[in-house]
Amino acid sequence: MKRVNIGLLGLGNIGSGTYKVLELNRNHIETTTGLDLLITKILEIDTERDRGFTVAPGVFTQEPETIFSDPEIDIVIELLGGIEPATSYMVSALKAGKGVVTANKAALAENYELLTETASASGAALRFEASVGGGIPLIGAITEHLAANEFTELLGILNGTTNYILTKMGEEGHAYEDVLKEAQALGFAESDPTADVEGYDVANKLSILMSLVFGKRVRPKDIPTQGITKITSDDIAEAAAHGCVIKLLASAFRKGDGVEYHVKPTWLNINHPLADVRNEFNALFLKGNAVDDLMFYGKGAGPFPTASAVLGDVIAIAKGL
Amino acid sequence: MKRVNIGLLGLGNIGSGTYKVLELNRNHIETTTGLDLLITKILEIDTERDRGFTVAPGVFTQEPETIFSDPEIDIVIELLGGIEPATSYMVSALKAGKGVVTANKAALAENYELLTETASASGAALRFEASVGGGIPLIGAITEHLAANEFTELLGILNGTTNYILTKMGEEGHAYEDVLKEAQALGFAESDPTADVEGYDVANKLSILMSLVFGKRVRPKDIPTQGITKITSDDIAEAAAHGCVIKLLASAFRKGDGVEYHVKPTWLNINHPLADVRNEFNALFLKGNAVDDLMFYGKGAGPFPTASAVLGDVIAIAKGL
Repeated sequence: MKRVNIGLLGLGNIGSGTYKVLELNRNHIETTTGLDLLITKILEIDTERDRGFTVAPGVFTQEPETIFSDPEIDIVIELLGGIEPATSYMVSALKAGKGVVTANKAALAENYELLTETASASGAALRFEASVGGGIPLIGAITEHLAANEFTELLGILNGTTNYILTKMGEEGHAYEDVLKEAQALGFAESDPTADVEGYDVANKLSILMSLVFGKRVRPKDIPTQGITKITSDDIAEAAAHGCVIKLLASAFRKGDGVEYHVKPTWLNINHPLADVRNEFNALFLKGNAVDDLMFYGKGAGPFPTASAVLGDVIAIAKGL
Repeated sequence: MKRVNIGLLGLGNIGSGTYKVLELNRNHIETTTGLDLLITKILEIDTERDRGFTVAPGVFTQEPETIFSDPEIDIVIELLGGIEPATSYMVSALKAGKGVVTANKAALAENYELLTETASASGAALRFEASVGGGIPLIGAITEHLAANEFTELLGILNGTTNYILTKMGEEGHAYEDVLKEAQALGFAESDPTADVEGYDVANKLSILMSLVFGKRVRPKDIPTQGITKITSDDIAEAAAHGCVIKLLASAFRKGDGVEYHVKPTWLNINHPLADVRNEFNALFLKGNAVDDLMFYGKGAGPFPTASAVLGDVIAIAKGL
């Protein structure tokens, strides 16, 4: 059994989900991988909240440096969200030679070169499967198992909130505002839904995918982005009359020597594999010059699916230690 | 640039596809992985056939031992098919310390322990992404990126021939025999279609997946298996009247301490993600206790999709050399 010590930055919903999945599947992970994964330090201010589990004394800290300077810690999981201080913390951890796993699409999309180059210079691993598509193992597939392909096309449904809203508008004929309120009540949309409904969340994810799929660095603010707030029931009915559904798509196509890309509500023929991706599910459709059409489908958010991706990355790094 | 020498066993359709994809994407693979992959020996009797490319002098051999004993060869790709001599050749290559990549579901399903234990004992890598689901990167996902999950359910459409036949019967109302003839004319079915239409091909694939997903070794002959030869247009119409389609499914479910498993034509509600998997496409649906529902969709056969998986495995092994 190989013992691997982990420092966790942030014990909010995703952090707590990661902690719980690690405890729930501890025996399974030990048996199948030979790894004893232990969270030995947690950076978190709120040490009192009832999360349904007990953190051992001495594990909570409010000093990030005690994690980066701890020679016993092998891997740092960053689940704070937001661009700063998350980016600075990841840089510190990588410079200290620790493997870093993050779900932070905003920090990655904004600071992709800084983070990947810091990892490369220090020789430490940086993995971010959870940053796009939640639990769906698409980044690993693109960067590892599909490495023999040149890709020509990428189409993604990468935001559960907007897909839920568009699905309900289409299937129940309700107006955007009504479905948004319902989604907020069910926890599928934030009280301030701007980042989701205006497409900014998807632009962050497309920025990350552009680097991986097409080797092209594009900042989120340079991706033409249009959200779903202006979509009406009439728009959806008109698409349906032409055998189509409306989906908020992240799209990128190779065209000549370049790549065209944007985020916008798009008509999709009902026979397209993405057309049946309903409610809060996410999916990524890819076309490679060897593999042809591929689709990955699953839960793009939520504590447990995200934890699946985070811990998959932790296991991958731990195996290589 | 890291030079990696490859011995290829078999230059039939899949072998030729692998050779072609490697040439087609050579620059891309070199740029993105830093690997210079070179096929230096090919075991093949038919050296005269026009395959659309020229093999350099001295590369063809009819003596497998010259590959296994060649100290310059790092990786052996086995694309002969069939249980023997493929299994013996893979064992020889692994014992010689060479990484082995295979697409051979029959040899793996029959000799899983022998092959994995030989690899483990010699410390050589054995990878077989192409053996199930062709180009779809599902084995890598299950064994690596989803390693933090316990799985509870597996449903697969894992044979393109039978899925093509069932799709055409359902959408065009034709009889089984007529659609089979059409599939044979189009190259989607073999002249002797037994292994496909009786479900034996799917049983081999389910046998491999049972080991990976549930850690349970089951030989193909011990999997209850029923093919599609008795499905009539009336059966399909009856399912449709109940909002269902008929698919040839590989199924496995955790039940109590055990796992139930079988291959058989199954009614599937049209809202299930697998119900829309049409024609020759394959898909695997999984439920994990962290990631929840997942689906992988793509081309389950064919020279180029299979080559994508084979070369993905080659790159993974080569990176670790």
